[in-house]
Amino acid sequence: MSSRELPAFIEGFGPVRPFQGLVQPPAQVTRAAARVCPAVAGRDKMLRDIEAAFDACNIGHGATLSFHHHLRNGDQVLNQVLAVAARRGLKDLRIAASSLFPVHAPLVEHMRSGVVSRLATAYVAGPVAVALSQGALTTPVVMQTHGGRARAIESGELHIDVAFIAAPAADRQGNLSGAQGPAACGPLGYAMVDVQYADRVVAVTDHVLPHPVCPIDISQEQVDFVVRVDSIGDPAGILSGSTRPTTEAVGLQIASTAAQVIRASGLLREGFSFQTGAGGVSLATSIYVKSLMIEGKVQGSFGAGGVTGYLVDMLEAGLFRTVFDVQCFDLKAVESYRTDRRHQAMSASLYANPHNRGPVVDQLDAMLLGAAEIDLDFNVNVTTGTDGIILGGSGGHADTAAGAKLALVATRLAATAGPKIVERVGCITTPGATIDAVVTEAGVAVHPSREDLRGRFRAAGLEVLGIEQLRARALSISNGAQLRAPDQKDTRIVGVVEYRDGSVIDVIRQSARASL
Amino acid sequence: MSSRELPAFIEGFGPVRPFQGLVQPPAQVTRAAARVCPAVAGRDKMLRDIEAAFDACNIGHGATLSFHHHLRNGDQVLNQVLAVAARRGLKDLRIAASSLFPVHAPLVEHMRSGVVSRLATAYVAGPVAVALSQGALTTPVVMQTHGGRARAIESGELHIDVAFIAAPAADRQGNLSGAQGPAACGPLGYAMVDVQYADRVVAVTDHVLPHPVCPIDISQEQVDFVVRVDSIGDPAGILSGSTRPTTEAVGLQIASTAAQVIRASGLLREGFSFQTGAGGVSLATSIYVKSLMIEGKVQGSFGAGGVTGYLVDMLEAGLFRTVFDVQCFDLKAVESYRTDRRHQAMSASLYANPHNRGPVVDQLDAMLLGAAEIDLDFNVNVTTGTDGIILGGSGGHADTAAGAKLALVATRLAATAGPKIVERVGCITTPGATIDAVVTEAGVAVHPSREDLRGRFRAAGLEVLGIEQLRARALSISNGAQLRAPDQKDTRIVGVVEYRDGSVIDVIRQSARASL
Repeated sequence: MSSRELPAFIEGFGPVRPFQGLVQPPAQVTRAAARVCPAVAGRDKMLRDIEAAFDACNIGHGATLSFHHHLRNGDQVLNQVLAVAARRGLKDLRIAASSLFPVHAPLVEHMRSGVVSRLATAYVAGPVAVALSQGALTTPVVMQTHGGRARAIESGELHIDVAFIAAPAADRQGNLSGAQGPAACGPLGYAMVDVQYADRVVAVTDHVLPHPVCPIDISQEQVDFVVRVDSIGDPAGILSGSTRPTTEAVGLQIASTAAQVIRASGLLREGFSFQTGAGGVSLATSIYVKSLMIEGKVQGSFGAGGVTGYLVDMLEAGLFRTVFDVQCFDLKAVESYRTDRRHQAMSASLYANPHNRGPVVDQLDAMLLGAAEIDLDFNVNVTTGTDGIILGGSGGHADTAAGAKLALVATRLAATAGPKIVERVGCITTPGATIDAVVTEAGVAVHPSREDLRGRFRAAGLEVLGIEQLRARALSISNGAQLRAPDQKDTRIVGVVEYRDGSVIDVIRQSARASL
Repeated sequence: MSSRELPAFIEGFGPVRPFQGLVQPPAQVTRAAARVCPAVAGRDKMLRDIEAAFDACNIGHGATLSFHHHLRNGDQVLNQVLAVAARRGLKDLRIAASSLFPVHAPLVEHMRSGVVSRLATAYVAGPVAVALSQGALTTPVVMQTHGGRARAIESGELHIDVAFIAAPAADRQGNLSGAQGPAACGPLGYAMVDVQYADRVVAVTDHVLPHPVCPIDISQEQVDFVVRVDSIGDPAGILSGSTRPTTEAVGLQIASTAAQVIRASGLLREGFSFQTGAGGVSLATSIYVKSLMIEGKVQGSFGAGGVTGYLVDMLEAGLFRTVFDVQCFDLKAVESYRTDRRHQAMSASLYANPHNRGPVVDQLDAMLLGAAEIDLDFNVNVTTGTDGIILGGSGGHADTAAGAKLALVATRLAATAGPKIVERVGCITTPGATIDAVVTEAGVAVHPSREDLRGRFRAAGLEVLGIEQLRARALSISNGAQLRAPDQKDTRIVGVVEYRDGSVIDVIRQSARASL
């Protein structure tokens, strides 16, 4: 563990409980009490519009509104809801969004005008991320992990007044489906947690079906109101165009090495389980792993994650008994979820909450992770760029790294901005103690605690180097240049990075560049 | 409403909040906080035996243990668990069982010996019921409804220390399936509530599958421990032999009339929804209703309930979009749940809890109910016999009657024990205000509040009589005899009948006969 100097108290956040390394969860935790307004038989749940939902839910200044990101960069629900909030003159709202994308640019103005003064999310990219780095929000954004968000909601640490659910299909009683309608996106895994703990739950849909929707993803017992709008999202933005495997030589080389590393680890046996992100190298790795599984006649147990068609291919080839899906990344995944019962929805809590009776990440064998940068302690940053500006966040990165038996970071040695293997990451998203190995085009570095892996990899003929050696090679191909922002110790803290257990693992400071 | 004289306080139960008629639910309720022991990664959830589960869960005197009845009269889990409790010398346990059957006879001895001193259930038949009526338990049994039980658990009124889940299939991580294994029984709808609020959850199974079980009914995040035993249940007792339609003339006549009553009500139109119990007359009615739907080209919305093959037939004929299933009654229903995604699991809360955001019972059009007896105020008793001895309980009776637009009681005028239409029922299970009509072989009686129905039924050529007239006919065919136990006002209260909202609607007194 590489500890950071953290203040004891952060204005607009509160007292800081610093990350203390990987510790056992508490022996017992409490899931918060929830307030529910019972249905009145015969009263219609359908409301005229979002405005009416604000009235019905009595949303006032300072309220916490939650959103989920299954519609990704096509989501139109958050913007529509906050436009209403602004029109009503509301101030100081807290937004608890599972992730934020470029499409959510209008949020910047709401932050600047004071409609929104607090924000918690597991990932933020685009104009909102830049604005946060510029200090547009009066309080630091709280950067969570997907599992940490579920934990915070369940524990009551993050109390939601009103959860807005972007529902691809809904009936008048509030049964919701993510698999039908023009904005079909698959399981509503993040929203599943919100609806259990929010005081009020409003489904926003553009596709009202006769009661009862079938199959149901979120059922009527969890939904207070249903609002029909013209459109909840743009299908073109929902299913990211990024879910294609790399076809580029270096990327393929890294992917091939990552697959060999997985085989060499000894995990590619009966019961193998696997997750990757949706980046090009990860997807190419899936294809290599699929071949190795077929070749070795490996009957795996499950694939998990944000799910792509490449994982679906593995399910359909019989390589897994099931897929656990918290959100779909592409149309093939949505179609599989719609038609194949082996493709199961998974709530964010089941996925990754470290404080329940058994998150799925704890059973992961191999997890393939990306990195904006990784340092000599194996700490990974996927939160800020080398310029110090926010460009993402953990999502499930820190959760899966902690759970997986083999957490692999697959990365090129360097990007345009300079080497990706650095002395010290600008921001710790995922602690090095949870990373087992780094796979690059120049070879593999193994975390010092995994001496066992080093031997296995060498025996398999893989090139194993020290992380310092990778760092040196990265520097050499970058001509030694590293376009890093200077440390900004004295600027304001604009972000607090929470580890999945709720401790603070790092902070993000206002960026001089971003503020230009 | 026919109010009963109720004491203000009942020894062993507490202060009495008397049933006040049908009242709106509170504007807001609180779902209880829950205590959870987070998983420790790598720690095995499999325990050696039930004994080990008592140790792991630290079960002590006075603990509340919960059980569910999906294995019905084949269940071997409750008996196995309580045998361990007795062997360990535990005393004063509270048992929260969704229902109890003759197979649970060993519980009688545990009550007499003090191992068990408190009991809450929605239904009890067989030796335990008789023993309760005899006063074998030191405190009154609390008779709930299925929805009321879910409400009590969610509100914290009924706190469960350890939930024991009879799991037809399980994996080592605690994912459970009701649809696989030798004791396959279908969805685990009652248990779904328990696992969310119990301090500890122990799955007991005789069929361990590789991780992950698929599809999952209860997921690993909800389960602390898994215990493998030789057998959790006798398939012959799980799927009741009673699920056959009546073939007897009077029964068929009642069923036919009930179907005509449903048609005459005007509800048999687009979106029709339907539930029946599993009695012979109910099942025969399903067959008649099916014919009427096909004949009238009625596209229904859903069938619900404890599900039989007859409801599955209707689903498969395309008459419903979905079936909501809280428990299966026969093999055909289990097979349908296993293979047909339109056949959906429903938790007891989604089914019938009056304090959530919308129980399914509130959308029921027609509900067909049985009765041990029904009185001039339309109050129904399915809790005690004419001898005053407990013979069942509400189950979902009072819940569905309250929710359905048309709650029909279908009953013969008289049984061996005398007329079934009585002046005053021995025990109120379901208040008359929630019953719309009574269908007998002699005609139909309509509740005074449903003048609209009376007109419709007459217009359809049905014989409509006053409830007093039915009573008179019932008396005449019983030769005026009524083998009722005398009122036992002074004997001890051995049962408290709770309405679904938790108010007390009646009490059950110790039976002189049963104590003989």
